[in-house]
Amino acid sequence: MRYLIKISYDGSKYCGFQIQNNKETIQECLESVLSKVVGERVSIVASGRTDAGVSAIEQVCHFDTQKELVEDRVKGYANSQLPSDIRIISVERVDENFHARYSAKRKTYNYCFYISESTIPVYEKFATNIGYNVNIQAMRDACKEFLGEKDFSAFCSSNTEVKNKVRTIYEIGITKLDDCLYVLSITGNGFLYNMVRIIMGTLVEVGLGKIDICQIKDIIHSCDRTKAGKTISAKGLFLKKVIY
Amino acid sequence: MRYLIKISYDGSKYCGFQIQNNKETIQECLESVLSKVVGERVSIVASGRTDAGVSAIEQVCHFDTQKELVEDRVKGYANSQLPSDIRIISVERVDENFHARYSAKRKTYNYCFYISESTIPVYEKFATNIGYNVNIQAMRDACKEFLGEKDFSAFCSSNTEVKNKVRTIYEIGITKLDDCLYVLSITGNGFLYNMVRIIMGTLVEVGLGKIDICQIKDIIHSCDRTKAGKTISAKGLFLKKVIY
Repeated sequence: MRYLIKISYDGSKYCGFQIQNNKETIQECLESVLSKVVGERVSIVASGRTDAGVSAIEQVCHFDTQKELVEDRVKGYANSQLPSDIRIISVERVDENFHARYSAKRKTYNYCFYISESTIPVYEKFATNIGYNVNIQAMRDACKEFLGEKDFSAFCSSNTEVKNKVRTIYEIGITKLDDCLYVLSITGNGFLYNMVRIIMGTLVEVGLGKIDICQIKDIIHSCDRTKAGKTISAKGLFLKKVIY
Repeated sequence: MRYLIKISYDGSKYCGFQIQNNKETIQECLESVLSKVVGERVSIVASGRTDAGVSAIEQVCHFDTQKELVEDRVKGYANSQLPSDIRIISVERVDENFHARYSAKRKTYNYCFYISESTIPVYEKFATNIGYNVNIQAMRDACKEFLGEKDFSAFCSSNTEVKNKVRTIYEIGITKLDDCLYVLSITGNGFLYNMVRIIMGTLVEVGLGKIDICQIKDIIHSCDRTKAGKTISAKGLFLKKVIY
């Protein structure tokens, strides 16, 4: 039987989602608790891994088991065993054809940032200060250059084995949350390794006047990682939602 | 000479702003660092104290010294000595008639909350989950009942020595930040002890249908603390701005 679990986590203390030797990861933590709760060794498949320091408002995973589970009991017992920075939102039985990674149609990521001469400690908990002198309107205008189906090789860490780097961005925009606090929201059919952080890093360079909006098309066409902006800090990045 | 300092702090690890014996407070931390930086014992006067766990996006203080200070040098040196959860935003010389507390004309507080069946660990860093079944529109409608000059005795902790409990609320409203994330913003000429937390606690009870909007006028008129809602958790409360 296959079960879908929705989870939410604060990734700031973890070395990312995916299991690594001798490192604290979300997956290791979840598998160890769920194995105990289910009573057999459980392997978790997520919609995608998130990097070290990246959090999720809602991440979707699945696991298989021989046992028929009482969903709410699994949720309650697992939450009582999990650390408070990882929560199971829901557990539900799904068809064996459902796959948390391959069935995902769209994902939305949020990147929280603020624009300030000084550090604002409260915002530092969940956002990155991109500095004082950025032109937020230029950043907003630049967003639309990323819309549509494109080869995003220039916006992918070279540290990847993925061959096909064509992805489609359906929506991208910047919303003001408060005086100097903003969120970039980006929805696509999938994201390459570090793609959101490199897009955000490029938008910051547009805001600083280091990259002109009309250059973005060329950067995309170049398929050259060195032409795009820096990979911005993971702090501020959240997996917001996965749509199936 | 009198100097105004604007500061920003994450109060979650502190026992509030005001100095208390053997407890870690923002004031103690600031006074100890500024005394070292200025080279004489410095006493800080803030626009008002904030409770344990309450943060400030922008708090305003003043201090007096015999010395003429180079403002930016004081800011830089103090920030290098302060813990990262307290930052000095600016230092500027002001007239001796300026008083951080008595000259304040308006203050704005924000209260961040979210509405969810499950805990969302990322939001838990800065917001309070008020539960799933609240009617946010009722809460919004109830806000306007607090507008204007009123005796807010019913919305003040009994643990206070303040005699005059008349305060004026100029603005109050709830803004949606994201799917289930909201902020209450409230601006007034001053706030009583726990006043924002009790107003927010009362709005939550309106949202839960435990208090009807039309009862709020009577609760205010009663001047009876026991008639209003509970004092909600300090987590989520931020001093946003002080206007002079």
